[in-house]
Amino acid sequence: MIIACGIEYDGTDYHGFQRQPSSHGPTIQGTLEEAIERISSAFSVVHGAGRTDSGVHASGQVIHFHTESRLTPEVWKRALNAVLPNTVAVRWASEVPERFHARFSAQSRSYRYTVWNDSAPSALRGRYSYHYPRPLHIGLMQAACQYLMGRKDFGAFGHSPDDTNPTRPGPHHCVRTMLEARCTQQDNTALIYCDFTADAFLTGMVRRMVGTLLLVGQQRLSVAEFANIVQRAEKTHPGSAAPSHGLCLVRVDYPEKFALPSSQMSAD
Amino acid sequence: MIIACGIEYDGTDYHGFQRQPSSHGPTIQGTLEEAIERISSAFSVVHGAGRTDSGVHASGQVIHFHTESRLTPEVWKRALNAVLPNTVAVRWASEVPERFHARFSAQSRSYRYTVWNDSAPSALRGRYSYHYPRPLHIGLMQAACQYLMGRKDFGAFGHSPDDTNPTRPGPHHCVRTMLEARCTQQDNTALIYCDFTADAFLTGMVRRMVGTLLLVGQQRLSVAEFANIVQRAEKTHPGSAAPSHGLCLVRVDYPEKFALPSSQMSAD
Repeated sequence: MIIACGIEYDGTDYHGFQRQPSSHGPTIQGTLEEAIERISSAFSVVHGAGRTDSGVHASGQVIHFHTESRLTPEVWKRALNAVLPNTVAVRWASEVPERFHARFSAQSRSYRYTVWNDSAPSALRGRYSYHYPRPLHIGLMQAACQYLMGRKDFGAFGHSPDDTNPTRPGPHHCVRTMLEARCTQQDNTALIYCDFTADAFLTGMVRRMVGTLLLVGQQRLSVAEFANIVQRAEKTHPGSAAPSHGLCLVRVDYPEKFALPSSQMSAD
Repeated sequence: MIIACGIEYDGTDYHGFQRQPSSHGPTIQGTLEEAIERISSAFSVVHGAGRTDSGVHASGQVIHFHTESRLTPEVWKRALNAVLPNTVAVRWASEVPERFHARFSAQSRSYRYTVWNDSAPSALRGRYSYHYPRPLHIGLMQAACQYLMGRKDFGAFGHSPDDTNPTRPGPHHCVRTMLEARCTQQDNTALIYCDFTADAFLTGMVRRMVGTLLLVGQQRLSVAEFANIVQRAEKTHPGSAAPSHGLCLVRVDYPEKFALPSSQMSAD
């Protein structure tokens, strides 16, 4: 039996999604595997749709695991939530067919990067947003986002993870398809959302895109220069990566045939 | 010179607003007084509009303090934010006349209690909301709220703090005026907001009102029984206090003559 789950986590105290030698500290994958083992008394490998970095959050991560246990998905959900720490939650659980794979079946991932753009920090937003005190020109950031759209080499913003995906081999290892890229300000608030949807992302890609877009917003980099950086696809560009605590994996989409619950949740 | 400030805090790790013997752990008042002393090299007492309990948050607390320092309010804001821990933030600072008092000049306080009403917990909402997994009838909770409105004895829901306010002496020590009381569900989400505005609140009052409203929402207490509990004004009633981490002081209102910035902030 294969169980898929929608997972939400506060990544603050985790060393990313992927299991590490335990000396590195807890990971989301390791925490989920321990919880599953406590319930079924057998070890199951957890496969995630996105390997989020250290400190990155998720409201809509999707995972799957194989189990010999005969628990229903609803019982799995309740049992996992009963044993998981309160920084990791199972939003839904569903039985899926043998051919489903959380990572390889995914059609797209959506990330939201949240900037708190005010001269004063926010004590209640600070855990899930990046405090950026200087004024930002959102219109220019939005204009620059147009140059991220479509299928292209995103080598300017990251490197390919150690890719074990047999369906995506070959020389175009930094080529991805961007389906959505936009920067919007929440009405009359200091909140700026940078939303990205792509078939897949390179390691560190969203944080480097945001770091570079923030230079555009400050008018330290023109939209034309941004377009040129994207087009050159070289890693030697001026934008540093924005910090991980502003980033959240908000949604993973699968073909309709799997009939999975939507994992999107308002990140407001 | 008297400086008033709008203060936001994550109350998770604080033993409430009010200064305590240091063995009890850090408080918001103590943390602010230390920060002010670091900047001005002189001790100033901090007066707050609302004495929030241990674990309660604030997005719109208001404080004032006297100082001999000649720093401008804007410099005070920046300097305080530079030395405060990231769980406490100064949203604005303003010079106010001698007759201003954060507590005694306040016309009303507004609190929001947030319930996460879903069978599964939320890892990202958990810090600022109370996970209540059983179904709730919001319409009944809203109907019960009508019986909280107006000027009455709220002795069913709390006791009067050790009141040093010379303007409110006498036998009616649990009489308060409720200006707003409502329970609403955010569209298509598991979030329920219980919003209350009153001239002043008794100690523990909002958490006990919410605890009793949750019994109405579960239909374990009828709206008529709720009305009766309010009317009797006796502490022997079935509702326990809802936990502190769902509560946030969102706004304090003052007469227009003080021209203070609005401290309200979307708590979504």
